[in-house]
Amino acid sequence: MKAVAYLEHVGRVVEPVLDGLLADTAVPEELRLAMRYSVLGGGKRLRPALCLAAAQACGVSDAVPRLLPAAAALELLHTYSLIHDDLPAMDDGALRRGKPACHRAFGVATALLAGDALQALAFEVLARPLPGVAAAAQLPALAALAEAAGPTGMCGGQVLDLSAERSPPADSELWRLQSMKTGALIVAAVRIGGHLAGAPVQTLNALAAYGAHLGRAFQIADDVLDVIGTGGTLGKDTGGDMAGGKPTVASRYGVEAAQRMALDAAASAAAALAALGAGAALLKELARFCAARDR
Amino acid sequence: MKAVAYLEHVGRVVEPVLDGLLADTAVPEELRLAMRYSVLGGGKRLRPALCLAAAQACGVSDAVPRLLPAAAALELLHTYSLIHDDLPAMDDGALRRGKPACHRAFGVATALLAGDALQALAFEVLARPLPGVAAAAQLPALAALAEAAGPTGMCGGQVLDLSAERSPPADSELWRLQSMKTGALIVAAVRIGGHLAGAPVQTLNALAAYGAHLGRAFQIADDVLDVIGTGGTLGKDTGGDMAGGKPTVASRYGVEAAQRMALDAAASAAAALAALGAGAALLKELARFCAARDR
Repeated sequence: MKAVAYLEHVGRVVEPVLDGLLADTAVPEELRLAMRYSVLGGGKRLRPALCLAAAQACGVSDAVPRLLPAAAALELLHTYSLIHDDLPAMDDGALRRGKPACHRAFGVATALLAGDALQALAFEVLARPLPGVAAAAQLPALAALAEAAGPTGMCGGQVLDLSAERSPPADSELWRLQSMKTGALIVAAVRIGGHLAGAPVQTLNALAAYGAHLGRAFQIADDVLDVIGTGGTLGKDTGGDMAGGKPTVASRYGVEAAQRMALDAAASAAAALAALGAGAALLKELARFCAARDR
Repeated sequence: MKAVAYLEHVGRVVEPVLDGLLADTAVPEELRLAMRYSVLGGGKRLRPALCLAAAQACGVSDAVPRLLPAAAALELLHTYSLIHDDLPAMDDGALRRGKPACHRAFGVATALLAGDALQALAFEVLARPLPGVAAAAQLPALAALAEAAGPTGMCGGQVLDLSAERSPPADSELWRLQSMKTGALIVAAVRIGGHLAGAPVQTLNALAAYGAHLGRAFQIADDVLDVIGTGGTLGKDTGGDMAGGKPTVASRYGVEAAQRMALDAAASAAAALAALGAGAALLKELARFCAARDR
């Protein structure tokens, strides 16, 4: 299946799962509405797709529907990070997934708590028993998600990102920042798919290498879109990186060089999966999609 | 051992564990310093103590040191909640654990991220293999922590708490709010101790009932201290609930009635452990301490 069709398929099947996870009426209404507002009805669902495609590449033919809750957990965690990144004390984003950012719609306090609650819910969902998955395989999946979200992952990357606005980092620092802020959760998505599939350590390492290259391709494409895209296509604020003087690969090397670097990274991602054979075709498609995407 | 001596003992042994968990130099320095600032060198370490005492009550004589990382995870999660509660968009607390709140010392963005990172780190630590604990026992411990932290636990309670400041809730709503905001993590602390000890479901239920009563005793004592305590003793802002018109048990029923209710709740907590016999003596002591504490 081609990448776009697969993403659309995963988007369709993960949506009702997310909807169900956010339907608990024991959750105070204002909080439930804010969580639903940010999670449902938008997003590429890339991280769930990567998780499921990785599990399929490791031989789990029924990853959809069997591992859908794990895939949904990744989207919950990703959405939490978007909500917090958009807060006024952070990037002060106004537009996200084609509508006002959570804090613009619900206020800062509720948005902050919706993010906090989505992070916790992601771990709760991934800690629930999954059919056909041993607890011993689920624990390292949880650890992978937590590592990606934590101080050496997303949170650390965001701290570096905020300080990069104050003083431009060296190239090596910029890569480090992006691999923590964006790459870590993408690596976790494919590793979690591998863990839940019971993959051996060499395969997990190959998936992690794939994810690291893919994360780089994805981030460079993001930087390029920030320059050439429009809010209408992307559903979020654009031009902000350039305007804020925030260093990106596109601003540093130019759009064309950045586009080539993204495609190179996608090729490296594909090469990392050589040992997985034909089963990894979909993951390779997804890497090419991420490098050349227009949204 | 008496409650105060046990809390001091746990405080001493959990401190170097927390220190070690927050020493990773791969964490950007500003973030690492903010996390260390809020976690280390303060706090009663009640939740770690409850977790370890519950495991001991279930027959794990070497809970200290074997389960210390799990106990530390509870303190990481608790500290995250304090940092976020103190943010300007929330309760705007100035003083915490005897020093300026995290956002006063490090700025709002770093404090927010320190909280986010501590939540993730708590799950990471609890997902790491623990000696002598089966993965099948660890998964429900993780689920218990996540539930307590999430939208039907702490985050939901905080949403209700913020709206209680705008319109005073009915008594039943006030109990619900407090059981979510404060009770949930205390219940989780003892349940996690029970899960890691491999306790049977009846024991887990008894521990949960104990935790719910204890949480109530703890919260009422907190409300009383907010009225009669001083910042110097408590190390945090006091009088804020009354000044803000925030309804509490102490403001609604008076200090003396509230103190009696706290002791009653502690007695109910102890009664819930009847089936555990002599092994639960320490947990009962801790309940009495929480109801009558002066800090």
